[in-house]
Amino acid sequence: MDAVPHVVIVGGGFAGLWATRGLASAPVRITLIDRGNHHLFQPLLYQVATAGLSAPDIAAPLRHILRRQRNATVLMGEVVAIDKAGKQVRLSNGDAIAYDALVVCTGATHAYFGHDEWAPHAPGLKTLDDALAIRRRVLCAFERAEAERDPARRTAWLTFAVVGGGPTGVELAGTLAEISRHTLRKEFRNIDPGDARVMLLEAGPRVLATFPEALSAKATAQLSKLGVDVRTGVPVAGIDAEGFALGEERIAARTVLWAAGVAASPLARTLDVPLDRAGRVAVRTEDLTLPDHPDIFVAGDLATLQRADGRPVPGVAPAAKQMGTHIANVLRARFAGKPAPAPFRYRDFGNLATIGRRAAVVDLHGWKFSGYPAWVFWLTAHVFFLIGFRNRVVVLLDWAMAYWTYQRNARIVLGKEPPR
Amino acid sequence: MDAVPHVVIVGGGFAGLWATRGLASAPVRITLIDRGNHHLFQPLLYQVATAGLSAPDIAAPLRHILRRQRNATVLMGEVVAIDKAGKQVRLSNGDAIAYDALVVCTGATHAYFGHDEWAPHAPGLKTLDDALAIRRRVLCAFERAEAERDPARRTAWLTFAVVGGGPTGVELAGTLAEISRHTLRKEFRNIDPGDARVMLLEAGPRVLATFPEALSAKATAQLSKLGVDVRTGVPVAGIDAEGFALGEERIAARTVLWAAGVAASPLARTLDVPLDRAGRVAVRTEDLTLPDHPDIFVAGDLATLQRADGRPVPGVAPAAKQMGTHIANVLRARFAGKPAPAPFRYRDFGNLATIGRRAAVVDLHGWKFSGYPAWVFWLTAHVFFLIGFRNRVVVLLDWAMAYWTYQRNARIVLGKEPPR
Repeated sequence: MDAVPHVVIVGGGFAGLWATRGLASAPVRITLIDRGNHHLFQPLLYQVATAGLSAPDIAAPLRHILRRQRNATVLMGEVVAIDKAGKQVRLSNGDAIAYDALVVCTGATHAYFGHDEWAPHAPGLKTLDDALAIRRRVLCAFERAEAERDPARRTAWLTFAVVGGGPTGVELAGTLAEISRHTLRKEFRNIDPGDARVMLLEAGPRVLATFPEALSAKATAQLSKLGVDVRTGVPVAGIDAEGFALGEERIAARTVLWAAGVAASPLARTLDVPLDRAGRVAVRTEDLTLPDHPDIFVAGDLATLQRADGRPVPGVAPAAKQMGTHIANVLRARFAGKPAPAPFRYRDFGNLATIGRRAAVVDLHGWKFSGYPAWVFWLTAHVFFLIGFRNRVVVLLDWAMAYWTYQRNARIVLGKEPPR
Repeated sequence: MDAVPHVVIVGGGFAGLWATRGLASAPVRITLIDRGNHHLFQPLLYQVATAGLSAPDIAAPLRHILRRQRNATVLMGEVVAIDKAGKQVRLSNGDAIAYDALVVCTGATHAYFGHDEWAPHAPGLKTLDDALAIRRRVLCAFERAEAERDPARRTAWLTFAVVGGGPTGVELAGTLAEISRHTLRKEFRNIDPGDARVMLLEAGPRVLATFPEALSAKATAQLSKLGVDVRTGVPVAGIDAEGFALGEERIAARTVLWAAGVAASPLARTLDVPLDRAGRVAVRTEDLTLPDHPDIFVAGDLATLQRADGRPVPGVAPAAKQMGTHIANVLRARFAGKPAPAPFRYRDFGNLATIGRRAAVVDLHGWKFSGYPAWVFWLTAHVFFLIGFRNRVVVLLDWAMAYWTYQRNARIVLGKEPPR
């Protein structure tokens, strides 16, 4: 058992799971460690946050996914430190686990650009718990508005702002507009949910900045048509429990969601290597290892590296999967005594973002389209990539029902609403 | 608007929802107040606790259910006191709501027979949040066992005890046995989940005490066949973080679930009337009102009353629905100046309990059966009564998949595991 090398993989996201799977038939034993018990299909997390899907629809237990891979052991635990000299990781429960090769892919969390005091008033969206907290906030805001008699306070409960005009921000804002205009229609007696104001705040000049300009313009037009008030070019200057400041303008809003900043997982700091501004680890393009540490690999949102043309590899699911697979290939070659594979090269299949009902933008290397065809393309791609047969069927069924009825099936408030 | 009487209904369970619906065409305005935003199909709550269904599968927003009933307003809020003299209820946010007629049906919570110190170690099952907490505990216990190297501690993580041999206890124990023997099989590397010990602890002489003795015996046999260690006739003498005491015997168990005691919601105390030992309110059989307070009705698990033969009306969903409907009939007659309807009479359609895969017991007034036919009967009845079309389809699909594959689709740990 101990004669074969021990590969420890930290993080069961796309990078970690694809690295594990890539080593399925390799003569190694693998320990995959994750804080949770599940792999999360992060591209659909906004659907849980907006009550369209339930949490188990987009997640599957890691040990269920890997049940037939006999060389892999799944461990639920939190790695708090990496000891490069001792070649071991330390867990929060005090255990230490020795490795021959280590793959670190603990992803990213949200960052508030030095304004951590905004965090309690503007929750971000990275985990299922984040999604359920946002769902609770959004649903409770409409309930509070219904119970509120003061018109100004009622307006504040009916004002929703999403900070950040990337794909997540666009999805959240578009879906919030759909909920207020369609899903909740006629269900309230004292308010008209259609009066809700949904704002999308982007400090840069345009939304979806990683897309061609023409598609950003299309996205803005589709958002406006859904009823979203898109504001670009002005940074958010402050957020508190009562609202936010947009440049000089002060807007009362009881629900602000954060889709702007991303920072690498704090575990990167325990690697004791230089990090970039977002806390990510620069890795060697050849094999995604740390310079001077060929036994430590970093992948997914935690890693930063350049493409051949100098642009960075983006923090998207396909890039994480490709990095995970590349690391598996490097390790297989290494343990077999074969030459290393060609350096990592990110294959960019294109870029797509959904906006809301029948609205999306797709950019496949110059083949650009938007609106209804783009939305069908987005839907097909996401259902196809969703892990697990049952999930696909249920998600399709939920979406078909949601499409025809405008209803959303997970409008259930779980847990306690925090005071606000 | 204020010319019509105002009926305030507190609690959106079966009693409150059926009372509200029964008043649909009456010349009243109704305010239905609930702490949550949803009606919960409580008979399937154990399926959420055991990872078979997700929370939104068995719940629907109250305001969505009542969206077409124009005389009903739904309010999410917590009633903390009832002012009989002032004819108003007070909410936790300080608001007061005046009523012409009040219907109180806030149900029951768990009770620990004067041993509140057991509560943190033996969670009960009444709400969706309870169910998610139990799911987290059960799934994490197997994870902890997998990571544990000490054999005694590992055994404690793999020992599960359910206190209380009523329908909920039997369902939980049977399903836990199925999970350990089938669902999790081959997914762990260091433990065999089939080694898990599932105990069902009943202080009385037999499980399912409200059923005929022959069916109790059948249930015990079916539980044993599923691998449950059924212990009757010995009360639990203590529960702490490490295990429990059964009479003189001390058993190490890190997961103990409470399905034994029930106490009425504490709101009953603010009514300032005599309560029974379980904290329930005795109501008049004629109209389910408080003696001396014809404007205050109590229904569901919060109420206690006798049948014609002296036996109590049981705390089950059909009884709650019938009480809600009866109150609506009384109010309709009263507001129309017509004679009161005949006194409340509980129509007992029978008693059924599920035990696990292909195992259940059914007692339809002497027509008794058990095993596979009883399980199919139970399944059909529950899917039929489940509110909302989508839920029925998804639940059926989930169950069909679970039946063929032994898989459970909601094996996702949400929230933080409490220290234990």
